[in-house]
Amino acid sequence: MTTIKERRTIRKYKSTPIAQDLLNRLLEEAMRTPTMGNMQLYSVVATTDPKVKAELAPAHFNQPMVMGAPLVLTFCADFNRASKWCEQREAQPGYDNFLSFINAASDTLLLTQTFCNLAEAEGLGTCYLGTTVYMPKDIIRVLNLPRLVFPVATITVGYPDEWPEQTDRLPLDGILHHDTYKDYLPADIDRIYAYKESLEESKRFVAENNKKTLAQVFTDVRYTKNDNVFMSKGLMEALEMQGFV
Amino acid sequence: MTTIKERRTIRKYKSTPIAQDLLNRLLEEAMRTPTMGNMQLYSVVATTDPKVKAELAPAHFNQPMVMGAPLVLTFCADFNRASKWCEQREAQPGYDNFLSFINAASDTLLLTQTFCNLAEAEGLGTCYLGTTVYMPKDIIRVLNLPRLVFPVATITVGYPDEWPEQTDRLPLDGILHHDTYKDYLPADIDRIYAYKESLEESKRFVAENNKKTLAQVFTDVRYTKNDNVFMSKGLMEALEMQGFV
Repeated sequence: MTTIKERRTIRKYKSTPIAQDLLNRLLEEAMRTPTMGNMQLYSVVATTDPKVKAELAPAHFNQPMVMGAPLVLTFCADFNRASKWCEQREAQPGYDNFLSFINAASDTLLLTQTFCNLAEAEGLGTCYLGTTVYMPKDIIRVLNLPRLVFPVATITVGYPDEWPEQTDRLPLDGILHHDTYKDYLPADIDRIYAYKESLEESKRFVAENNKKTLAQVFTDVRYTKNDNVFMSKGLMEALEMQGFV
Repeated sequence: MTTIKERRTIRKYKSTPIAQDLLNRLLEEAMRTPTMGNMQLYSVVATTDPKVKAELAPAHFNQPMVMGAPLVLTFCADFNRASKWCEQREAQPGYDNFLSFINAASDTLLLTQTFCNLAEAEGLGTCYLGTTVYMPKDIIRVLNLPRLVFPVATITVGYPDEWPEQTDRLPLDGILHHDTYKDYLPADIDRIYAYKESLEESKRFVAENNKKTLAQVFTDVRYTKNDNVFMSKGLMEALEMQGFV
C-alpha cells in the first residue's frame, strides 16, 4: 500500500475513459467497507455524459476537473432504498431524521475513501471536491436525487496527466492525543504550524493575497465566516428538502 | 490490497498491545488522505488506559470491544486547533457553524477509513463503533473534548483472535447509478434484497425476533424511529454544546 504514502491529488487527466469493468470491480471491493448494521446506506452516481457533467460543473464552482475527468462519482447518503424496502415489507421506516443522515453520510464517506485508496493503487488519479456540500441543492436537482438521498462527496477520476509535488502535513504529535484530549497551549500551536508557515509556497500565498499571515488567507480569502454561515443555511435547507431534518 | 476484499470486522482481539511505533507509522501514512484546504480538520485520541476505556464503555452501550481491544481510537472533527492558530495569527476564525462541522467530519471520516485500510493490511483487526454519534455528550465529557471538537468515529484495534464469516453485500447494480439517479421500482427492491433475505442467518434473525420480515427487525428492534428521533435531539444538542450550531 505504498500508493497511500506517495499519493497526490490529481487534477489533470488523460482522456482515456475508465473501463466499466474496472469501475465495477473497484466499487465491489470498496463495498467491503464497514457499514451500519450492514445496511449500505449509500448510492454512487457515476457520471460520464458530458451534458450531465456540464450541468454539474457550476455546482462545483466550475472547477475544471468536472469537465476534464472522464468520470465524476457522486457518493450519496441514501436512506431511500432502505426505506422503500421497509415499506414493501410491512415495516415502518424511521429514518427521516438528523441521526439517520449522519449515519448514512458516515457510511458513504467511508466507502468513498476505500474506493479512492483502491483506485489509486490501480494507477488512477482522484480529486476530492469539497464543493459537494456547498451547493447541494444544485447537485440534487441535476442528479435527480429523491427524498432521503443526499450528496456528501464527489470524486473526479481518471488516468493521471500530471504528478505534482506532495503537499505538506502537520506533525503527527499535532493531531494525536493519548488517552484523552490535551488542549493546545500557544507554544504548541506555534510548534505545530511552524513548518507549514516556513514553506516558500505559504509565503508566496500570503504575499499574493496581501495578507500578514497564512491564517488570514484562510479566514479572509479561502474559507470566510460569511461564506460558511451562508452555505450552512443552504446545507440545512437542503437537508430539510430531502427529509432528513 | 487483497486485504480489503477479504476483510472482516474483528470484535475479539489478542491481548498483545499495539506498538506505539506501529500506530504512529499507520497514522502518519493515513494523514496522506485528502483534507479540505490541507487544514487537517481532525484529532485522534488513542486510548489504552483501562480506566479511561471503562469510562468510555457505557457511551458505546458497553460493547465488549471497548474493554477487550488493546487500543480504542476516537476520531474527532477538530476546528479547535485551526481556530486557535488563526487567533494567534491576527486572523478571525469563522468555523463555528454547521458547514464547518460537516467539512471537519468529512475530513475525519476519510482519515478514519484510510487508517483502517492500512491497519488491516498490516494484519490488525478493527471494529467500527457506530455508537459514537449516539451519545456524543458522554464521549465529549470522558475525553475532555473542547469547543469545536466533536467525536465522529470510534475504532477498536487489536491483533485478531477470531476470523468470522464474511457478511453479505447488496449487488453492485443496487447501489450504482449511471449519469443520474434512477429511483427504485418495487421490482428493483425485490431483486436487490432477494439474496440478503434468502440467507439462513436472515431467516434466523426474523424468527428470533418474532417478526414477519427482515426489514421489521431493523425498524422495530435494531434502529427504531423512537431511538433515532431521541438520539437526533441529543446529537444536535451536542453540536450546539461544542459550538458548531
